[in-house]
Amino acid sequence: MTQPRLDKLIASLQTSGLSAVAINPGPTLTHLTGVGFHLMERPVVLFVAPGHDPVLVLPELEFPKVELFPYKIQAFAYGENPSEWDDAFRKAAQAIGLDGKRIGVEPRQMRLLEFRHVKAGAPEADYPDATDVLAGLRLRKDQAEVDTMRKAVKIAQDALETTLPLIKIGMTEKEASAELVMQLLRHGSEPEMPFSPIVSAGPNSANPHASPTKRKLQAGDMLVVDWGATYDGYISDLTRTFAVGEVDAEFQKIHKIVQESNAAGRAAAKPGVPCANVDNAARDVIEKAGYGKYFTHRTGHGIGMEAHEAPYMRGDNMKLLEPGMAFTVEPGIYLTGRNGVRIEDNMVITEDGAVSLSDMPREIRVVG
Amino acid sequence: MTQPRLDKLIASLQTSGLSAVAINPGPTLTHLTGVGFHLMERPVVLFVAPGHDPVLVLPELEFPKVELFPYKIQAFAYGENPSEWDDAFRKAAQAIGLDGKRIGVEPRQMRLLEFRHVKAGAPEADYPDATDVLAGLRLRKDQAEVDTMRKAVKIAQDALETTLPLIKIGMTEKEASAELVMQLLRHGSEPEMPFSPIVSAGPNSANPHASPTKRKLQAGDMLVVDWGATYDGYISDLTRTFAVGEVDAEFQKIHKIVQESNAAGRAAAKPGVPCANVDNAARDVIEKAGYGKYFTHRTGHGIGMEAHEAPYMRGDNMKLLEPGMAFTVEPGIYLTGRNGVRIEDNMVITEDGAVSLSDMPREIRVVG
Repeated sequence: MTQPRLDKLIASLQTSGLSAVAINPGPTLTHLTGVGFHLMERPVVLFVAPGHDPVLVLPELEFPKVELFPYKIQAFAYGENPSEWDDAFRKAAQAIGLDGKRIGVEPRQMRLLEFRHVKAGAPEADYPDATDVLAGLRLRKDQAEVDTMRKAVKIAQDALETTLPLIKIGMTEKEASAELVMQLLRHGSEPEMPFSPIVSAGPNSANPHASPTKRKLQAGDMLVVDWGATYDGYISDLTRTFAVGEVDAEFQKIHKIVQESNAAGRAAAKPGVPCANVDNAARDVIEKAGYGKYFTHRTGHGIGMEAHEAPYMRGDNMKLLEPGMAFTVEPGIYLTGRNGVRIEDNMVITEDGAVSLSDMPREIRVVG
Repeated sequence: MTQPRLDKLIASLQTSGLSAVAINPGPTLTHLTGVGFHLMERPVVLFVAPGHDPVLVLPELEFPKVELFPYKIQAFAYGENPSEWDDAFRKAAQAIGLDGKRIGVEPRQMRLLEFRHVKAGAPEADYPDATDVLAGLRLRKDQAEVDTMRKAVKIAQDALETTLPLIKIGMTEKEASAELVMQLLRHGSEPEMPFSPIVSAGPNSANPHASPTKRKLQAGDMLVVDWGATYDGYISDLTRTFAVGEVDAEFQKIHKIVQESNAAGRAAAKPGVPCANVDNAARDVIEKAGYGKYFTHRTGHGIGMEAHEAPYMRGDNMKLLEPGMAFTVEPGIYLTGRNGVRIEDNMVITEDGAVSLSDMPREIRVVG
């Protein structure tokens, strides 16, 4: 499975003007190797350059993982003393003649920790952003990947349905979130979830990136649940918004607007149209309803092995959607200090349209 | 709580030769602000410079978090289009005159994503490694922090004790790991755990950094469980090794050696001695037993808000232990292709010695 992915990377390096790429632990490394590495205080970097076996720099205590690689690699292991690490990187760079070349990196994955050692190994190289080349490897999901994502969506939906009857007025956001995580695990999510669920109510729900607090759920709160599961390395990322007891008529109206916006965004998704169309379709509904300035983020982001990856559903993104691309549609309206509403689904572009992997009811439902 | 921490940072900047520090989401930012930010595809950076209010660059959709800051800050928010982000960083750097200065960074926390924007804002600045200055803020835990860590240890121990009777021959490592995570949550761990538990058996246990696989537990396996809980932002990080059914006499002997090594490492910990002493004491036991070359990692690492932080128990680390320092003692012996054993406790240095926060039995116990 990973050999063809490596071949594909090498082919795209040859057309992209890059001599090599340097990849540290994260989804690209997992996708290319099938071997799991942690991001930790010891750097791990895989160098891939056409015409050579890939080269891996890693700590000695990770050396057993070299045998798990599905193809031949050269490994350079270093000991516990950080002053020796640069030397391992120099040897790695020399082994495949990297210095002075163009070595692509992923700025969102690579830390200064890895980068400074990589640069010590090849000080005269350039380090252009290779995010597009590397994300491109994972941009179009095949049927097996879509099936796996569908399973991650099902686990998430089943887990929330099991959690909802347990959510009560007076419970804290943190307690509700812990219950949801338990149900995610019970329904089959891997313990390494895409992100810690957002369970935020009332004023906290007006912050799109809230973390669960000790605030107790109160009647009149809108309750935003933004959650996902991991299955076989692929994730889901969904949001539904509930009413805690009886809520203001204004927020019932806002919920309906967001539901219509979500539907319009999903309906705009099909092959051959720019990502911007999805954003515009969802945003138009909210703007026409007079809440445009309270929809403070883009309409969606790609999903797959990462909770946030290409393609991005932004008004200025003219990239065309292609079959196999997978992404969220998640419009929201946030009234600071009061309440927020967001409804998020997981879409996959098909040959002639798009499907939503998620089908949990989107209408307002009362909990508590 | 966070104002004195900010004051302490500013005082240590004035003696360290740094004009400022640039901090992105991670434990240092949480420690200094009490505000939670995710590491994501949009950069968030706090600049702290003596004589100025701290400056924060963040995406517009995170703007509500500015109000959560416990002291006055200047905030520069940017929109969804990445081409505008450098401009927000330039304004931030200009607001407190950062260009050309020495701006400390944390290479293990800061990604190239943040760094390239920071550098665009202050292209003529130097960016020295400020890990020691910043980690120094969190190095000595106060009583409240130790009490919180003790609670994180208790949650972890109670969770594993509840899990052990459920572990059976034929169960996969992944299944056992999911059960343990559920018990961690049920016992009160926050959903964002310090790391995903390592539950590895037989040949997988010989890899100190294994991830749980679908391999089923078999009689004769050694079972390494390396797990921890999070409580109020502080973590625990423990390991115990079990016998699945009946195991070889050799591994029973190895288990006893590791137990003695762990006890020797813990006994060596006290204020005023170098970290190296802890490593040497633990390592001596294993070397004298003839397994020195199978103990492939340092004896321990600091713990607190991070699962891996200063101080490090390495043979070449001559830093002296001080009251309030907290760290792991976790010797191991790994026979590749066969089995591994590791026993890990969480220690805190006191005025006249050290205490182990963990007290779960260390002797070999049979599961399955």
